[in-house]
Amino acid sequence: MSEELDQLCVNTIRTLSIDAVEKANSGHPGMPLGMADAAYVLWTKFLRHNPNDPKWMDRDRFILSAGHGSMLLYSLLHLTGYDLSLDELKKFRQWGSKTPGHPEYGMTAGVETTTGPLGQGFANGIGMAIAEAFLAETFNKADHLVFDHYTYGIVSDGDLMEGISHEAASLAGHLKLGKIVYLYDDNNISIDGSTDITFTEDVLKRFEAYGWHTQEVDGHNRGEITDAISKARKMVDQPSIIKCRTHIGYGSPNKQGKSSSHGAPLGKEEVALTKEALNWDADKHFYIPVEVKEHFEEAVQRGREWQAEWNMSMENYHNVYKDEAKILDQFLAGDLPDGWLDNLPVFESNKSGMATRKASNAVLNAVADSIPNLVGGSADLAASDKTTLENKGFFSSFNYAGRNIHFGVREHAMTAALNGMALHGGLRPYGGTFFIFSDYGRPSIRLAALSKINPIFVYTHDSIGLGEDGPTHQPIEHLMALRAIPNVTLIRPADANETSYAWKYALEHKDGPTALVLTRQSLPVYERDEKNHARNVEKGAYVLVDSEKDTPDVILMGSGSEVQIALDTRDILAEKGLDARVVSMPSWEIFEKQDKSYKDSVLPPNVRARVSIEAGSPHGWEKWVGCEGTVIGINHFGASAPYKTIYREFGLTPEKMADAAQKCFEDINATRTS
Amino acid sequence: MSEELDQLCVNTIRTLSIDAVEKANSGHPGMPLGMADAAYVLWTKFLRHNPNDPKWMDRDRFILSAGHGSMLLYSLLHLTGYDLSLDELKKFRQWGSKTPGHPEYGMTAGVETTTGPLGQGFANGIGMAIAEAFLAETFNKADHLVFDHYTYGIVSDGDLMEGISHEAASLAGHLKLGKIVYLYDDNNISIDGSTDITFTEDVLKRFEAYGWHTQEVDGHNRGEITDAISKARKMVDQPSIIKCRTHIGYGSPNKQGKSSSHGAPLGKEEVALTKEALNWDADKHFYIPVEVKEHFEEAVQRGREWQAEWNMSMENYHNVYKDEAKILDQFLAGDLPDGWLDNLPVFESNKSGMATRKASNAVLNAVADSIPNLVGGSADLAASDKTTLENKGFFSSFNYAGRNIHFGVREHAMTAALNGMALHGGLRPYGGTFFIFSDYGRPSIRLAALSKINPIFVYTHDSIGLGEDGPTHQPIEHLMALRAIPNVTLIRPADANETSYAWKYALEHKDGPTALVLTRQSLPVYERDEKNHARNVEKGAYVLVDSEKDTPDVILMGSGSEVQIALDTRDILAEKGLDARVVSMPSWEIFEKQDKSYKDSVLPPNVRARVSIEAGSPHGWEKWVGCEGTVIGINHFGASAPYKTIYREFGLTPEKMADAAQKCFEDINATRTS
Repeated sequence: MSEELDQLCVNTIRTLSIDAVEKANSGHPGMPLGMADAAYVLWTKFLRHNPNDPKWMDRDRFILSAGHGSMLLYSLLHLTGYDLSLDELKKFRQWGSKTPGHPEYGMTAGVETTTGPLGQGFANGIGMAIAEAFLAETFNKADHLVFDHYTYGIVSDGDLMEGISHEAASLAGHLKLGKIVYLYDDNNISIDGSTDITFTEDVLKRFEAYGWHTQEVDGHNRGEITDAISKARKMVDQPSIIKCRTHIGYGSPNKQGKSSSHGAPLGKEEVALTKEALNWDADKHFYIPVEVKEHFEEAVQRGREWQAEWNMSMENYHNVYKDEAKILDQFLAGDLPDGWLDNLPVFESNKSGMATRKASNAVLNAVADSIPNLVGGSADLAASDKTTLENKGFFSSFNYAGRNIHFGVREHAMTAALNGMALHGGLRPYGGTFFIFSDYGRPSIRLAALSKINPIFVYTHDSIGLGEDGPTHQPIEHLMALRAIPNVTLIRPADANETSYAWKYALEHKDGPTALVLTRQSLPVYERDEKNHARNVEKGAYVLVDSEKDTPDVILMGSGSEVQIALDTRDILAEKGLDARVVSMPSWEIFEKQDKSYKDSVLPPNVRARVSIEAGSPHGWEKWVGCEGTVIGINHFGASAPYKTIYREFGLTPEKMADAAQKCFEDINATRTS
Repeated sequence: MSEELDQLCVNTIRTLSIDAVEKANSGHPGMPLGMADAAYVLWTKFLRHNPNDPKWMDRDRFILSAGHGSMLLYSLLHLTGYDLSLDELKKFRQWGSKTPGHPEYGMTAGVETTTGPLGQGFANGIGMAIAEAFLAETFNKADHLVFDHYTYGIVSDGDLMEGISHEAASLAGHLKLGKIVYLYDDNNISIDGSTDITFTEDVLKRFEAYGWHTQEVDGHNRGEITDAISKARKMVDQPSIIKCRTHIGYGSPNKQGKSSSHGAPLGKEEVALTKEALNWDADKHFYIPVEVKEHFEEAVQRGREWQAEWNMSMENYHNVYKDEAKILDQFLAGDLPDGWLDNLPVFESNKSGMATRKASNAVLNAVADSIPNLVGGSADLAASDKTTLENKGFFSSFNYAGRNIHFGVREHAMTAALNGMALHGGLRPYGGTFFIFSDYGRPSIRLAALSKINPIFVYTHDSIGLGEDGPTHQPIEHLMALRAIPNVTLIRPADANETSYAWKYALEHKDGPTALVLTRQSLPVYERDEKNHARNVEKGAYVLVDSEKDTPDVILMGSGSEVQIALDTRDILAEKGLDARVVSMPSWEIFEKQDKSYKDSVLPPNVRARVSIEAGSPHGWEKWVGCEGTVIGINHFGASAPYKTIYREFGLTPEKMADAAQKCFEDINATRTS
């Protein structure tokens, strides 16, 4: 292959990218111009993929962590034969196109993860590499490498400034994930100007400290890049980062090396000048020379061959390793195996009860054998979050088949790595931390929801009920803050049996993350019959204990640990001659999806006396209690004390709830009779 | 001073700490036992403070970033003579005590910042050191060092695993903040076990890469610790970290060096065994030997002398440098200078208008001269957030008096550093990023609110109105998620003049953070008179354009950019014969604080036909529109396209709002007449 053709190919990437940005009158030309050389080398000489089957399991993963350079990726996807037409490139950043401003998983074939918020792709890649290592260790045989692929990425100064890159890199180095190869676009420019103004750390030394293999190359010297990637691939027990010294906006006579090339179109004139500088016909737009097209499209044939070879190998594997193959198929299908539900625990009713975090652990361990691709861990709180799968080993460089992962005190990287594991496929990942620290992982929770992937977040110590650790550790706003994110399903079970079905829902849910919100403190395990069966969790809300009369005087509702208060309130009201229904509402999102008749059967519109209770921000409960109802919540921070004291002092008691219910009932009655 | 007395003092810290944890039956004994030696050396040989005046301006700051070791700090505060009685230590973690589970700023004299969520204290310290450097550079003279103090801290493995520590350390190294001296408690233990299981990076090499000075000592060798701190203090242009190799749970025969000593009481028996091992009378609880008491209390006298000396120096400064002293007094008073309001810009009404981010920049620059301690920056988005103070210089190691700070792509560290600057005192800090990235700084936003400090967060690009960057960058849930945090005031102004008063509110607000939520896109500047004056922002909501009739048929309400849609809706409704009032509601929190009569004057209870519009999660608006009203919002993710297209496609248009208003009005009327 000639140097000349290479150059033509690289410049095709460049000109496609700037043409698209120019047409959109919006976007980021600087990065595609600067990283075209390195990306070209990676995509044509190393990346093992099949454009005709973007979901081929053993493909190399490519992550554009610097997602603002999306046109680089879209150009490559189009050129190498993915289902992304030139018309789509022309509709860059337009309504209904497959080429949104930042790459979106599920929107565009070949986009492995949604990026843009910096650092996320970097950390997703760690999760993908964890998944690859786990699957390889679990299934590979000396004569059959079922899983053997790399996770490549392009990362930017911005990615490396973000804290999440530290957490993820430290973890990857510790785990010796040798199949990570990241190209660092060291262009010396960030939005505010030269990186000298704020980013002068010795990046490679920092990565050495994490245990990474590091190299430095001229990012416009394709030979150097080729050699460096070759070498990086050989580092089997070290993740690799290759610092590519590049010029942002390469080729643009007036904007190369300047932040002005970063986030705005070059302008018509500058595009023309850039094309001239690149020996390109300035009058041609979205132009792909025929020899370039032919050269890139070799990827289609190569991909077909690679996958055919792999398919053949898989066929042999199925013949030789029948037992393993059966499990493998189950992993890859993404469905839960038949019969797994038989193991879902049923807890005996019990007044002293158990914490829902403990019930969660019981569920995890009950289903662990039947769902062998359930893999997870905690951010250094395994014993508190109760996330450990017993006797399933710990994932480490000594044992990549361990199903428990020590993520360390790295909530953000954990969340993003869980996303990466889910994106990779083959695994059913979960991870735990204290609910308060969901804030640390919040940007990644949002991306899971946007990407419609289904990691399971296990959030324990979910309220003032954690007691003495005090307000720094007591969630108040967190229930509302998570409910506000579109496509997150939050479930806060009221007892052990609700916890079983919360897990069932989470495990079966496919197109979004589930947050299980669990108590530190013990809760009663309620008596159940067919009518108030815990499977009603799958309807989001249900009647846990009904009124004596057909039409209750009052409806009491709540979630999690406060359901018990509602039940005690019911007793107090009964003494006062008021007949209450108690509704357990573990999940707003699920309840909202039910049909109107079910919703009305739980919350009959004609019962206007309603009181809700939840140990968190009251925002939004108005929707369920209605105009005449009363919301009991907490609109201030917590306190450090034994939890029963805090509940009492904050007025979250059956007595207060009964007072509220009585007043609510009487006010409505007074209005009626007045 | 004898080695023996030193040992007795250190063991007093240890026994006080374990006695308090034991009595509370809750807490973290391991860290106080392990770090007592180092903390003792720091507090008695180096820390320049005045227990009688914990707010003395030129005191050294001490941060316990590993806040779970709170008993270490409480023991030191009690012993060195702060207003924290032994009784308070006995009430550790109890309701109403000054000794909550984790240290809380404002709760306990001598606690410089609220810690517990890991990494936060580490980053607060960077902000404090920025403040010190700025003030020193601004006011110090060769013969008068008004500001000359250190920021000390104790940081843990957990702190250093968190991403925020990376961001903050990289920034501090870049800024050459030499007056930071952190002791790293390298105890090899995290909650889940040995740090070997997840944290094997070379920490000191990593900090060298950031440009820090690094040392390593035996954390139980007080001589080594003394020498290392002495040396660290001399490194004027490098922040310092001293790795102290310690044994967690030092002295406990069965728990030393084990994670079991970390987060639970040792148990009665083990406490006795530990005391024996420390040559302590096991029968004595909360025991302070008289010579220990005397020795520690020397801090009171020393502190008095230090401060007296400083006061004297300040007096001289006032005599010699009268002009500077006047400004200095203004900085320290914490109040805004007289007359600053005269500079608050008033914008002419204008249909094509301006983006509120631009108006924000105009306000900043209009008041910059009159508020010389207004200091801030952006997380690498200064040009987009419009946060730059013109001609006020950039804060750097070449110019610590620069008022603009390049925080880099480090939203989390920026937010925590702003908190640190506010905690330090003397400055009025603000910082900007895109609203979507408030998620990255969320744990620090919460701590600002909990700590009742008043940094100002400037969040631009506040909705789908940012357009082509797409759903990864378009906030949806963020308004609700911030409104749910107690004590955060969120203001989303509807035009340039509302932006002026939003800034006024933020600058005058003392006991909590303010989030200013601003548009990328231009908005009209509305016509104003006395009745609808933009100063009404300070009431949270007000009538922007009233109905023709005394009692409107419909109330239309919204915030920010959607107020314009409400106004256009009013015109459409007028054509249909419906008379609408338009309420601009920039801040729920402020409106909630108004008295009932004002609230009822804006939203008269008898007008039940109400429609709200906001380009974000609809949660919670029910409260304002009532049962029969309609909420127009967005309960799904955004899209990548020109913003007007997105508004149209998502149904946020005057036509749709008019339809909703008409239906709402008719439904209510139908009920009335039926």
